[in-house]
Amino acid sequence: MWDMAEELKAMLVFAEHRYYGESLPFGANSFKDSTHLNFLTSEQALADFAKLIKHLKRTVPGAKNQPVIALGGSYGGMLAAWFRMKYPHMLVGALASSAPIWQFEDLVPCGVFMEIVTADFRKSGPNCSESIRRSWDAIRRLTSTGPGLHWLSEALRLCSPLTNSQDVEHLKDWITETWVNLAMVDYPYESNFLQPLPAWPIKVVCQYLKNPNVSDPQLLENIFQALNVYYNYSGQVKCLNMSETATRSLGSLGWSYQACTEMVMPFCTNGIDDMFEPHSWNLKEFSDDCFKQWGVRPRPSWITTMYGGKNISSHTNIIFSNGDLDPWSGGGVTENVTDTLVAITIPEGAHHLDLRANNAFDPTSVLLARSLEVRYMKQWIKNFYASLRKKH
Amino acid sequence: MWDMAEELKAMLVFAEHRYYGESLPFGANSFKDSTHLNFLTSEQALADFAKLIKHLKRTVPGAKNQPVIALGGSYGGMLAAWFRMKYPHMLVGALASSAPIWQFEDLVPCGVFMEIVTADFRKSGPNCSESIRRSWDAIRRLTSTGPGLHWLSEALRLCSPLTNSQDVEHLKDWITETWVNLAMVDYPYESNFLQPLPAWPIKVVCQYLKNPNVSDPQLLENIFQALNVYYNYSGQVKCLNMSETATRSLGSLGWSYQACTEMVMPFCTNGIDDMFEPHSWNLKEFSDDCFKQWGVRPRPSWITTMYGGKNISSHTNIIFSNGDLDPWSGGGVTENVTDTLVAITIPEGAHHLDLRANNAFDPTSVLLARSLEVRYMKQWIKNFYASLRKKH
Repeated sequence: MWDMAEELKAMLVFAEHRYYGESLPFGANSFKDSTHLNFLTSEQALADFAKLIKHLKRTVPGAKNQPVIALGGSYGGMLAAWFRMKYPHMLVGALASSAPIWQFEDLVPCGVFMEIVTADFRKSGPNCSESIRRSWDAIRRLTSTGPGLHWLSEALRLCSPLTNSQDVEHLKDWITETWVNLAMVDYPYESNFLQPLPAWPIKVVCQYLKNPNVSDPQLLENIFQALNVYYNYSGQVKCLNMSETATRSLGSLGWSYQACTEMVMPFCTNGIDDMFEPHSWNLKEFSDDCFKQWGVRPRPSWITTMYGGKNISSHTNIIFSNGDLDPWSGGGVTENVTDTLVAITIPEGAHHLDLRANNAFDPTSVLLARSLEVRYMKQWIKNFYASLRKKH
Repeated sequence: MWDMAEELKAMLVFAEHRYYGESLPFGANSFKDSTHLNFLTSEQALADFAKLIKHLKRTVPGAKNQPVIALGGSYGGMLAAWFRMKYPHMLVGALASSAPIWQFEDLVPCGVFMEIVTADFRKSGPNCSESIRRSWDAIRRLTSTGPGLHWLSEALRLCSPLTNSQDVEHLKDWITETWVNLAMVDYPYESNFLQPLPAWPIKVVCQYLKNPNVSDPQLLENIFQALNVYYNYSGQVKCLNMSETATRSLGSLGWSYQACTEMVMPFCTNGIDDMFEPHSWNLKEFSDDCFKQWGVRPRPSWITTMYGGKNISSHTNIIFSNGDLDPWSGGGVTENVTDTLVAITIPEGAHHLDLRANNAFDPTSVLLARSLEVRYMKQWIKNFYASLRKKH
């Protein structure tokens, strides 16, 4: 956005989603209970954007009657696409980058997300995904005794030692999330989105995971080196903290509530097409957890009812861009739906790489994607002015 | 719908709007206060329809994958149009009959509604609108004394006599609403929508209002005869009851709340282009009344923000039908917006005449309208199946 605003003579507006950042409708009580959280929905967020645009057009000199384009990445990309679908009178078009609008119900197989994570590791170094696949059983074997628990806590430099089997489950979840996050931020240059990281961080991680045919302790030492790339690129960290997977606050509390109400995304693994322990998607269990945490139960089919699922062909002027490295591309729109609902894929791209600032190490595919995106935007704007002229 | 369901092999579904009829989300408490009324919005009603359609498709044998068309008249027509706009994946099209989707903010002049009412009376008999126009001053003069109040109460056979100036204001509002209602139901045959009425009821009314140049008492005697057509077509009524203008419950309580929140429709009169006393639209006063009655204040620009106001050209497959006699046609779509957002006007039609059952006295214009409507529907269905075939 920063790189192309001037060329498009655009005003950039960053709208903060309600219940995130400083936009707390009930201040410190906003997350108190489901009564206060009741207004945290994607529909309400879209309505906020609609009111904001009206307000800006009314109050900002020169903004009246100007065309508006929505841009967003990830959940923000879903919102950008949905905003164009629901408020087409307010936008000339939308760029939805890495927006998994089909990661709902059974629109895509629940295993696709983890298969992409696995593929990223498979192609980033020899035996890399196989080493990770074998690590789960090694952890199980090592942690079956008290001394083993102690040894592993030391080997992984954990800030809080593992004391029971619940801790071991937590450990595996935390490691799993680490590999997922690495897949999302596998950028071609040093970056700092979820954590400060080197260029192509999975390649760096995989240098430690070349040999799966080693003893359990050796394998876990290697896993530690790999985790250390993600959690300690700076070299300043004294121990690894299992309570965190991302340094910056991306509002995980708000998202947890949204996942428990509208944004119900089924995920699963089978250990064959992916490198993880098999877990089927269990809505009942998920729902019970939501009820325990928030006092609400999910409405798993509401998003597809509201936003159309795969039946979106009556809408126009939305670009869906996805990086092939990004696990979220599995729930994204990666083929053109119509002439004006278009897909752009970026083979070397991770999570919304196209929305990041220009960088000398950008692969050609993302440069092409950005240039195509701008071309579409210019066309939308041109059509907007043409239809204005036709009216007068 | 009854007349053409068989030809279209259609299942007819009548969805009751929440907070109307028996669909009370909090039972007897539904209208208790604004907390309980908070879920009475057009958006929630549309969401109900979406869930209903999904449910029916899942549970009714043969309903799966069938095309759906929304039909509605008046507010129901607005909902039909808005449903197609917001949930295009659920409908192949919508028939919005007498749907005043532009009776908001300043999309149409606030006086147009009463001008159409006036035009109906003007063309239904010589001096008819002029007699009504003169009646307001006659009422004012007659009711300036105690004996005059008494006389007028008797002359109009009111169930409760007029006792003060507030009663006189109420009387004028009640008479005004009667003329409005007559304009809405000025059907070409005997009917019973708001009240049992003769064919072309305004013509019958106007037979009593041929001479505006009579004494005040004579003019009010004539007005009584005119009102009597509306309130006592059966001849069984002993006195006229100012607390009612329509016999059947159309849910006026729910509408009053909706008008005080989302459905803010500006109306005004000037006494020149219409036959009423001049009243400007006063949002402040309206808002204060809403706050007094419901504890809420209106959001007058929300409907246009949400549903696009006049910028609806990106939507498709909506028929807007309007009768020229219908005052609501003033806020309706009476010219084609695009090739697929089409307007049908019925010169001899009152409020959603096209949705009423076939009748031997139907004017040709409504027969043509219905036939055109069915032709559009068949085209939508045909296109639906054609695009299904293209997918497979």
